Amino acid sequence: MDINAVDIFAKELVKEAGEIIKKSFSKVLNIETKSHANDLVTNMDKEIEEYFIHKLNSHFPDHRVLGEEGVGSNPKELSGVVWIIDPIDGTMNFIHQQRNFAISVGIYEDGVGMIGLIYDVVHDELYHVKKGQGAYINDKPLSPLPHVKVEEAVIGINSTWVTQNRRIDSSILSPLVRAVRGTRSYGSAALEMAYVAAGRLDSYMTLRLCPWDFAAGIILVEEVGGVCTTLKGEKLNLLGENSVFIANASFHDAVLKDFLHNGNW
Amino acid sequence: MDINAVDIFAKELVKEAGEIIKKSFSKVLNIETKSHANDLVTNMDKEIEEYFIHKLNSHFPDHRVLGEEGVGSNPKELSGVVWIIDPIDGTMNFIHQQRNFAISVGIYEDGVGMIGLIYDVVHDELYHVKKGQGAYINDKPLSPLPHVKVEEAVIGINSTWVTQNRRIDSSILSPLVRAVRGTRSYGSAALEMAYVAAGRLDSYMTLRLCPWDFAAGIILVEEVGGVCTTLKGEKLNLLGENSVFIANASFHDAVLKDFLHNGNW
Repeated sequence: MDINAVDIFAKELVKEAGEIIKKSFSKVLNIETKSHANDLVTNMDKEIEEYFIHKLNSHFPDHRVLGEEGVGSNPKELSGVVWIIDPIDGTMNFIHQQRNFAISVGIYEDGVGMIGLIYDVVHDELYHVKKGQGAYINDKPLSPLPHVKVEEAVIGINSTWVTQNRRIDSSILSPLVRAVRGTRSYGSAALEMAYVAAGRLDSYMTLRLCPWDFAAGIILVEEVGGVCTTLKGEKLNLLGENSVFIANASFHDAVLKDFLHNGNW
Repeated sequence: MDINAVDIFAKELVKEAGEIIKKSFSKVLNIETKSHANDLVTNMDKEIEEYFIHKLNSHFPDHRVLGEEGVGSNPKELSGVVWIIDPIDGTMNFIHQQRNFAISVGIYEDGVGMIGLIYDVVHDELYHVKKGQGAYINDKPLSPLPHVKVEEAVIGINSTWVTQNRRIDSSILSPLVRAVRGTRSYGSAALEMAYVAAGRLDSYMTLRLCPWDFAAGIILVEEVGGVCTTLKGEKLNLLGENSVFIANASFHDAVLKDFLHNGNW
């Protein structure tokens, strides 16, 4: 594919989708119950996914779309060019806060991440990357991630994973929460990965993500030298559910060895 | 005191302090280690506290200042007018992110909260309240807090309080984390209280806060009908350390009864 042409087109689409989402705020605010708000977000997700598919069909008809709503071709393998899209990542924030959500678009060619876009709609911050050509927040280049000691790190992790849950023994991550300098939780995987790329968080980890939640983020994070694996240190699967552990290389190594015991749990 | 005159003056001071802080960003970014960054923030905290005291001395010489850095009169009781100030609430965010911190100013008259200002410097969002005259974010009035069921709530709580810690048995809050719809953690008590007032979070709770961390927040939250107590349901002490639990009234009642057992722990 012509990476520059696709990149320009993708950025336009993402900005236009952001405008559509912003216009929906007045509707969200007039909704009486959260469950009705959920329906609206699901509809909005679908509407934007369809918008992407419609635009792609006329500009790049051979590109396929893998999205949360499954309204596209929803490929089972990644040959050719596949757009992996989450129209609204952080739907709970969208409903409760009308902020702290993002549009996430990862564009893969034969399974290799080529373009990543994460758009923080409300703060008008577009994190973007073309593989091998640098990562940016709006016009500002992002720096290579520094080495960070565990005791100096601020990490993104939700309280859920250190209380009883179905995915991980809560005693595995608790010592890490006590060892680091601080923890945060923002409720949008895409944004939290963007924050790692921008150096605002030193790591982000979670026990359950789908490809559309992390497809753009890993291209962005890897471009600045970060490491993206499952919590057991394995390669991420772009066609299924994963645990996700992303961090600068030194923190990733240390935590995998000293806290996650290289996945022996 | 003339609440309108003091309010106008306080808002000017807070905005000017915000400018001073923004100018320091280039210095923070050039600092090589986090511990040096800590020193810079401590100096910045002091500088801004001194700036407030200096300005107050010439405009309202009988007003006193209670602040984190203790460079003011640091009163041991709250007679007369006392400004309770945190120049940078969320210092770890200031260092790591250059965002998600706030200036917090609560102005009390004979122990009663009269004016509250929480300024999210980077996003230029000023949350403000004059007791009995409504709460605002910039020019937009904040609505009375709605009733929210526990299972529909998104709450601000840090992972620390559901892992082993010195302040609370981690098993007390874990069931609440599992019962609510979601948890968030932003790393600035003042901002998290402002988010509750603005309806972006349904509750905020923590085990250790000083008066300057919550003095402005409780005036703001109470103005929109929220309830502010310790985690045992007791009145907050404005002259010492506290646990803090703020929420809309229905959530506060339910959680105190069903999860915190009215403080019997």
